[in-house]
Amino acid sequence: MSASPGRGATAPSLLAALEGNGWRSGAEIAQRLGISRAAVWKQVERLRTRGYDIEATAGRGYRLVGARDLLLPEAIEASIPASHRPERLCGPLVHRDSIDSTNLLAASLAREGAGEGTIVVAEQQTAGRGRLGRSWVSPARVNFYGSVVLRPAIPPLEVPRLTLVAGIAVAEAIRATTPLAAAIKWPNDVLLDGRKVAGVLTELEAEADRVRFVIVGIGVNLNATREHFPPELRDKATSLALAGGAPVDRAAFAAALLAALDDAYASFLAGGFAALRQRYEALHCLTGRRVEVDGKPPIVGTVRGVDDDGALLVDGAGGVQRVVSGEVTLTTTYETLR
Amino acid sequence: MSASPGRGATAPSLLAALEGNGWRSGAEIAQRLGISRAAVWKQVERLRTRGYDIEATAGRGYRLVGARDLLLPEAIEASIPASHRPERLCGPLVHRDSIDSTNLLAASLAREGAGEGTIVVAEQQTAGRGRLGRSWVSPARVNFYGSVVLRPAIPPLEVPRLTLVAGIAVAEAIRATTPLAAAIKWPNDVLLDGRKVAGVLTELEAEADRVRFVIVGIGVNLNATREHFPPELRDKATSLALAGGAPVDRAAFAAALLAALDDAYASFLAGGFAALRQRYEALHCLTGRRVEVDGKPPIVGTVRGVDDDGALLVDGAGGVQRVVSGEVTLTTTYETLR
Repeated sequence: MSASPGRGATAPSLLAALEGNGWRSGAEIAQRLGISRAAVWKQVERLRTRGYDIEATAGRGYRLVGARDLLLPEAIEASIPASHRPERLCGPLVHRDSIDSTNLLAASLAREGAGEGTIVVAEQQTAGRGRLGRSWVSPARVNFYGSVVLRPAIPPLEVPRLTLVAGIAVAEAIRATTPLAAAIKWPNDVLLDGRKVAGVLTELEAEADRVRFVIVGIGVNLNATREHFPPELRDKATSLALAGGAPVDRAAFAAALLAALDDAYASFLAGGFAALRQRYEALHCLTGRRVEVDGKPPIVGTVRGVDDDGALLVDGAGGVQRVVSGEVTLTTTYETLR
Repeated sequence: MSASPGRGATAPSLLAALEGNGWRSGAEIAQRLGISRAAVWKQVERLRTRGYDIEATAGRGYRLVGARDLLLPEAIEASIPASHRPERLCGPLVHRDSIDSTNLLAASLAREGAGEGTIVVAEQQTAGRGRLGRSWVSPARVNFYGSVVLRPAIPPLEVPRLTLVAGIAVAEAIRATTPLAAAIKWPNDVLLDGRKVAGVLTELEAEADRVRFVIVGIGVNLNATREHFPPELRDKATSLALAGGAPVDRAAFAAALLAALDDAYASFLAGGFAALRQRYEALHCLTGRRVEVDGKPPIVGTVRGVDDDGALLVDGAGGVQRVVSGEVTLTTTYETLR
């Protein structure tokens, strides 16, 4: 993953040179990065404006004291394990402090030609959007809001499968960075203790039978408190911090999520949803449950899993039916999804 | 259908007042339209700048001598039979003398909230586009180039059916306005004597399982001469004038096409493609022919028609197969499609 143009490719190196909380002399850093001491000072200043707390003392040099937990490209990149080499989500990674909606910016970049793997992240959304025109609560600097540009060679009818791919990535990233047992409720709600912790909004622009680009937007509630949610959502929504009792390193979560999404998306391109079906079912909390799927008529039955196309299999009065879209509710209301 | 905002809703009335090639006094027109004689003069001037040839003589008044054959909203509206009341394609009708692509403008208007039934027509496209990123030859003032904004409540996978709906409308409009036996080659090529006379480019913006809007762009070669086509297309493409030996009234053709499209689209919304299947098959030239559909592996067989979802039914080695996308070629190359 590379930082977006103009963001300074040397910033990660300076951060790396300052790693470990000890003092580093200006001369030492300058030599390591192959730049002048004046250039080191300039970069330190820039990192400070971006939220890093860096001490500077004549004679001792520089020391990284801390950083606001932001979703800055260099912070996300620093958290990606060296073992993960992104196949598809290779950036650029565009960061905004505040934005109407990461999906809107990603779509606009894609329309102008941005390539597959372009990533947009924001600290805050002023017009965060969910499915079906709903809004997505997007307070500043506590959660993750990000969108990726994908250009898969698939017809529009296969795009809903990418929503399932994103669900896998979110649940796996939560499991990788916390002890929480995140579960997926078909198609792509991610739940903790039956409460929604993440949402995926997948949008596409296409010719009738060929996708031009897909924007997969993901919002994950990380450190949001009860007060960040409007009263009517407080019993239905949660965050990793609320469910786990501890704040989450947002950049580290973003890195884990992008790595999981890259990995799942590459599998999808190589083998279709069939290649991910078992991975999805391992995270899926509806299998074996009695559900009702809205529709005319509604479908009532017991979930048997998903098929190789990502359709939900519901075993009801008329045998097993494939459900490709619809809202699913548990019919035994005292149950909680885990 | 109403003219686009700012284009002057009184223009059609003035044209109506001048109908019949006779002289009309300024006072008579002013009284009929309920405006001042100075306002009549102003409107006459505007019509002249838009291509109408209007004589003005002191004492006799005004006389409509002729008009360049343009796709002006008032000219198209004047050609729509009074018996046709548009159900869905109710405008506004936006006209451009020259434009990059009518689909691009229509999509941009739709993104800004333009409603279903918004129509864009242009005399010329400087970046006319076809399917799969191909270009569409779009010389000035000889053909029809138009796009409509549709907002059907369907999932993206049903959008290819709208391409078939557009094919029906084009073929029916040609049959209604000329003696030519236009035929459809699945999915939506419209042919005259085996040569392509029209193209449809259907584009969509959607959530994964819900269409936000569809742009159906239609290009029809009307009065283009052989010289308007690049040499490599001269044996494959034709125009109504080339095939029929007589020039076509472009505004009248546009009116017939929009009326046919409105009618076919309304049927589609009411009953799905099933409601149009017979109408499609009556125009379809592949039924009974031996074809090959590209793919891995290619499908070879005899076309049995289309099904209620608009899929091509090909009867080959493995029985009848449903084809939902792909390029179809005749396997007996000496045949011509009619």
